[in-house]
Amino acid sequence: MIAEIIAVGSEMLTPYRQDTNSLALTAELNKLGVTVAFKTILGDTFDHLVDAVRIALRRADLVMISGGLGPTEDDLTREAVAAALGVGMTRDAAVVDALKLRFAKRGIAVREINFKQGDVIDGADLLPNANGTAPGQWLATEFEGNERFIVLLPGPPRELTALYAEQVQPRLQMVAPKRYIATAQLRMAVVPESEVDARTSPIYTTYADVQTTILSTQGEIQLHFQTSARTLDEAQERVDEVAGRCEREMIDFVFSSNGESLEQVVLLMMGMRNMRLATAESCTGGLVAQRLTAVPGSSRSFAGGVVAYADELKTAFMDVPRELIQQHGAVSEEVARAIAEGIRTRTGADLGLGITGIAGPGGATLNKPVGRVYLALAGPDGTTAQELNLNGDRERIRWFSSQHALAMLRRRLQ
Amino acid sequence: MIAEIIAVGSEMLTPYRQDTNSLALTAELNKLGVTVAFKTILGDTFDHLVDAVRIALRRADLVMISGGLGPTEDDLTREAVAAALGVGMTRDAAVVDALKLRFAKRGIAVREINFKQGDVIDGADLLPNANGTAPGQWLATEFEGNERFIVLLPGPPRELTALYAEQVQPRLQMVAPKRYIATAQLRMAVVPESEVDARTSPIYTTYADVQTTILSTQGEIQLHFQTSARTLDEAQERVDEVAGRCEREMIDFVFSSNGESLEQVVLLMMGMRNMRLATAESCTGGLVAQRLTAVPGSSRSFAGGVVAYADELKTAFMDVPRELIQQHGAVSEEVARAIAEGIRTRTGADLGLGITGIAGPGGATLNKPVGRVYLALAGPDGTTAQELNLNGDRERIRWFSSQHALAMLRRRLQ
Repeated sequence: MIAEIIAVGSEMLTPYRQDTNSLALTAELNKLGVTVAFKTILGDTFDHLVDAVRIALRRADLVMISGGLGPTEDDLTREAVAAALGVGMTRDAAVVDALKLRFAKRGIAVREINFKQGDVIDGADLLPNANGTAPGQWLATEFEGNERFIVLLPGPPRELTALYAEQVQPRLQMVAPKRYIATAQLRMAVVPESEVDARTSPIYTTYADVQTTILSTQGEIQLHFQTSARTLDEAQERVDEVAGRCEREMIDFVFSSNGESLEQVVLLMMGMRNMRLATAESCTGGLVAQRLTAVPGSSRSFAGGVVAYADELKTAFMDVPRELIQQHGAVSEEVARAIAEGIRTRTGADLGLGITGIAGPGGATLNKPVGRVYLALAGPDGTTAQELNLNGDRERIRWFSSQHALAMLRRRLQ
Repeated sequence: MIAEIIAVGSEMLTPYRQDTNSLALTAELNKLGVTVAFKTILGDTFDHLVDAVRIALRRADLVMISGGLGPTEDDLTREAVAAALGVGMTRDAAVVDALKLRFAKRGIAVREINFKQGDVIDGADLLPNANGTAPGQWLATEFEGNERFIVLLPGPPRELTALYAEQVQPRLQMVAPKRYIATAQLRMAVVPESEVDARTSPIYTTYADVQTTILSTQGEIQLHFQTSARTLDEAQERVDEVAGRCEREMIDFVFSSNGESLEQVVLLMMGMRNMRLATAESCTGGLVAQRLTAVPGSSRSFAGGVVAYADELKTAFMDVPRELIQQHGAVSEEVARAIAEGIRTRTGADLGLGITGIAGPGGATLNKPVGRVYLALAGPDGTTAQELNLNGDRERIRWFSSQHALAMLRRRLQ
């Protein structure tokens, strides 16, 4: 069963507001094995609405519409759905009476326009709204020869979620085909998306029943797998199989198959080995420390660190000889090694991580361009170093530096 | 001129990801007097895409499509737009050569599938992408008798925004009808949204022609004003008037009326006074240092700092007497003052900022709950301190701590 979610409201067409109801609705629909294939967001314009409802009824089995059920001139969802179906509406006397009572209680005069909240599309069930004045509606109908379900929901999130849970979910459960959805995911660090795709698509394309999505976020590639089956076990087995095969193919890069972040994985590995880390950051300015300490309980494995932006601080806090900086420059493998070893010694941590580089836009020299970064990791077995040449702006260079640093840590801990 | 924004990507049909590009695009389009009337979000399914493009071309003058321009099997936007228009594509030799060069430089073998990024829809202009491998495309065409503009943009936000600004905006400016829109904004730190609204709504509601929006993001309230007029001067005068009146009302909290971030404002003020800051962070774990160093040129006013997660580091790097920590606890005003003064002395900076607190979820004690944070600022005129009692989860508490710390710095520098 395929669904389209339509969000109605002009405010969601401004640069400031977004439709968020669809996220909660999608989570609920997926639980019933219903796939959301389309989302449409539009304003309270009658012709636009009528067309959008018709388009949705052509391409989706289930059309969920939120918003536009209020009592103002602008609220046109009921009228538009009736027009799209070519049917009429009947005003529900009980809703009208309840509105009169509600207004009387508050001592406000009820206006004729308020009563349109009682207009029920012919053939629809009214869905009482415990948290507001606008009832929802549920309609099973035929459209251009296909069986279709239409749900009208109020826009305010707390009204919508309560109404969905109490009245829509039980109805959908009756009509949705019995399918169970299972998901799996793999997370990989510092590997190009095209390489992941080239190596895994020969695997995942052979699973036509599994929907595979590659997501590329900053310095991380995620593979998401989803399928449905008649039992949850069957569905889970299927996604686990394809995820397992892709994981073996990308084993050097996969840091998590259970959803943990790279920070969490690194902290977990240090925790298991009873090791503590200290950081000495220059160009990343505390980003690595900040990412690690964002994880609850990180104090067990993270001792702390120094943000040595000024060169004097590299000397004062990490005992880096002034001459070393003068000889090789603050951005050099030698200084990365010295700050990694210095912070390790000064803090007594098991591991010392050093990062120095040119994040830009200024600071480049003749032989050291923006994006040149040196990482060093000092440990009981010695110090290793890595040179990076990163593209992009300051934000990207800093983030990727931190991402490579965490990936370097993970490799060392493996 | 009416626009539809189509966001392509299966991940945006999950409960986890949302289209965010459309917000930035809407802001830009509004500046040109273009109204966004529809947004459609759908996955990488060829038939769905072709239909969606046709639907958009029927109801909008301008169709902006983001995503689906990558080098994988999933990326079908180019093909779908060509099919919707019933035209072919031609592979651009320069794009293919650039891809070969790019991969050769990195020592990775380029694959045949990568070259599809050079497929240009017949009649389209290629829009080079300075930040990624997928070029955009611009197409002015006729569809069912109407003049239409189609723009294909890469999905990653930083690629999309740069490409829009450099190449799409100038083209749109040529074809969009002339209207002048002026905007103004005020940014305020650590003040409740309800207070801002209660104090400014009596002002802004008297300007019926100005659209005013209050936005609340983490620890920051923004007031956005927008209006249009026959001349830019006229529009600007109008928004400047209402913004000026609201600014005077909220003068204690407004840190910027020109769009600068709180970090930028603080660095600017230190720069003007020739002052340097050093930070000593415990619960924020480097977040303040990271936020400041994210600003280009911050090295002039930011010396560096220490992330003193473990208590030993507070002693080793900031000379905090062990007994002080034992007596008052690491989370105390006394320790906040000691680390602020210690980091100031050790680094020779003009200002020393100290933060210690309980970000949770663990770490609370009988008389110090999660959310208790102490800030201290040491300077040439002495040390001031502040106690915070913050609500929310670890991420929120850390963020708000950094926000209050920057606001404290700003007040001191004023």
